[in-house]
Amino acid sequence: MSFPSTGEPGEGTRSDRPAIVALGGGHGLYATLSAARRLTTAVTAIVTVADDGGSSGRLRSELGVIPPGDLRMALAALAGTDVGAEVWRNTVQHRFRGTGALAGHSVGNLILAGLTEVLGDPVAALDELGRVMKVDGRVLPMAPIALAIEADVAGLEADPRVNRCIRGQVAVATTPGQVRRVRLIPSDPPACPEALDAIDHADMVVLGPGSWFSSVIPHVLVPELLDALITTRARKVLVLNLAAQPGETAGFSAERHLHVLSQHAPGFKVHDVVVDAESVPEGRERDHLRRAARKLGAQVRFADVSEPGTPKHHAGKLAGVLAQIARDREGGADDTTTDDVRTSYDGWQLGVRPGIGGKESASWR
Amino acid sequence: MSFPSTGEPGEGTRSDRPAIVALGGGHGLYATLSAARRLTTAVTAIVTVADDGGSSGRLRSELGVIPPGDLRMALAALAGTDVGAEVWRNTVQHRFRGTGALAGHSVGNLILAGLTEVLGDPVAALDELGRVMKVDGRVLPMAPIALAIEADVAGLEADPRVNRCIRGQVAVATTPGQVRRVRLIPSDPPACPEALDAIDHADMVVLGPGSWFSSVIPHVLVPELLDALITTRARKVLVLNLAAQPGETAGFSAERHLHVLSQHAPGFKVHDVVVDAESVPEGRERDHLRRAARKLGAQVRFADVSEPGTPKHHAGKLAGVLAQIARDREGGADDTTTDDVRTSYDGWQLGVRPGIGGKESASWR
Repeated sequence: MSFPSTGEPGEGTRSDRPAIVALGGGHGLYATLSAARRLTTAVTAIVTVADDGGSSGRLRSELGVIPPGDLRMALAALAGTDVGAEVWRNTVQHRFRGTGALAGHSVGNLILAGLTEVLGDPVAALDELGRVMKVDGRVLPMAPIALAIEADVAGLEADPRVNRCIRGQVAVATTPGQVRRVRLIPSDPPACPEALDAIDHADMVVLGPGSWFSSVIPHVLVPELLDALITTRARKVLVLNLAAQPGETAGFSAERHLHVLSQHAPGFKVHDVVVDAESVPEGRERDHLRRAARKLGAQVRFADVSEPGTPKHHAGKLAGVLAQIARDREGGADDTTTDDVRTSYDGWQLGVRPGIGGKESASWR
Repeated sequence: MSFPSTGEPGEGTRSDRPAIVALGGGHGLYATLSAARRLTTAVTAIVTVADDGGSSGRLRSELGVIPPGDLRMALAALAGTDVGAEVWRNTVQHRFRGTGALAGHSVGNLILAGLTEVLGDPVAALDELGRVMKVDGRVLPMAPIALAIEADVAGLEADPRVNRCIRGQVAVATTPGQVRRVRLIPSDPPACPEALDAIDHADMVVLGPGSWFSSVIPHVLVPELLDALITTRARKVLVLNLAAQPGETAGFSAERHLHVLSQHAPGFKVHDVVVDAESVPEGRERDHLRRAARKLGAQVRFADVSEPGTPKHHAGKLAGVLAQIARDREGGADDTTTDDVRTSYDGWQLGVRPGIGGKESASWR
């Protein structure tokens, strides 16, 4: 048994808790972090830094800082729950209203921008604001510099075979065409060293859910990050979106989400793909999905992970599935599990087995 | 002996230290607070809220909050000195550069505005930011609402007898005319209740230095604040500016500073007027100043309180003079003291005498 009950955020100390690393951005990452914090206090968020819209976009273009919005959301997801932390969580998330120069800016974005200018380092800025918000764990940018996203998009010309290059996260996320491929600019950005270290020492790594092309895939496009994801001994879990997203993944099946991820990172494998049972009907669709997962080296876990009446993941339900995955040491224990390919991964068991080796025994006790 | 040595900020707890209340705004108040914190940890700043220029002016007009700039400066003056507090002090004081929508805004002003919107109360916002900055003591606005300043100014018309009404703190502070009288708008604003309480329980109250018409006199124009200043048993000290200020007090003698204060608050008396010895030559000028002080009920203390080569008060030197004032229980001990009118005040000795009554014994032990 590796995780505590999933009702409340974990209360232990980092040293006796499993380390979970969650990669993504925006509301998807918020959901994963809300789930992960129920299982452990050692949660590290690794966050996309390619946003160019809204308050974040204004700040990156005006001040040259990395876009803070997704980082701020991640801090809010991991903030402490006492009164003092609550005040700061609410303030950090607060947006100025009105029609003036500040309208739409989140206070937390402004604080992160200010701390970054003063400290000269976005990681130090995040650690400092995290301290005030009593964050359990850590929030890190995937790269220490602001990135841009560029996509090849079909369907924008009369000739459907012609791709056009669309640049910018907002433009890609809202294109009426079909996104074929995304690239980062620069194409070979450095990863945040602390992020590489967190992945290396993780017991479980969770990628997604989130805007597929602009929040999930960017992580595997950072070469050092992809290397770390490939070589880590952590259990790797991919959480699919509950539905295709209007714009960037309009009309995409669950299966196609896996295909495009593989296309962008051929060497990348995961152990588990978590899929909301309601969103993929029994039958052919599930068979296709299982086949696509197998190419990623993964079994599919169908489970109820949605918040009824919303397009959002339910933190408690998602935590339950992650806990189940952590408990399954050799596979086959979960009756929603239909594929078992985990034996093809050397060492994945080490990531979830207690008492083996220094790292694992410290993390999973 | 009532105060510790003046070399370092006080380290005791509130209960065994004298309570000093400093009223003012801007750089003048910063100097007083920097001096007061060397003597005690129980420092309360009561700050003008009539600023309409710069970042503060933009925030009050855009968001409807009380102008935060002078409050922020006061927090910075009282911030803790460990590494964590230092990071926040630097960030709070940091101004965004560039030419964009944020240029010129202090990060601390934005944080105070955000906290005030979230908490619905500027005092709660100041307490919360003060907690993060590890402020010893408390920073309070003189009124819980933003105020405006209006002045009758002579010398703007061909006929020197004609006064014109000038409105706004910046306009008053920079007028090329001679300010005759200032008013607050609204004319009868509420005082901050916590400020009244602090004055009531103070052992020493320090007014000034600072922009005379826009940072010092406004305090005695708030009726409840004036009442509290009149009735408190605290030792009352007025600190004069080192020089007349271009604009609002251009050409004013030290004596005239006292006259205009009296004009604006006829019932208000102080025990001591602290004057930089260099700025008022021996002879007639000092006689005039002593006579003006006597009308305020005060003795004049000439001392070296300036920072060489600057127009600013030296915190350590000013602290030394305040400590001297606190030590002088019955008067006459200080050789810079030439007037002794303190016996005309019932109870002032209680303010600095240890062991008399509950409040004083708790404060001055």
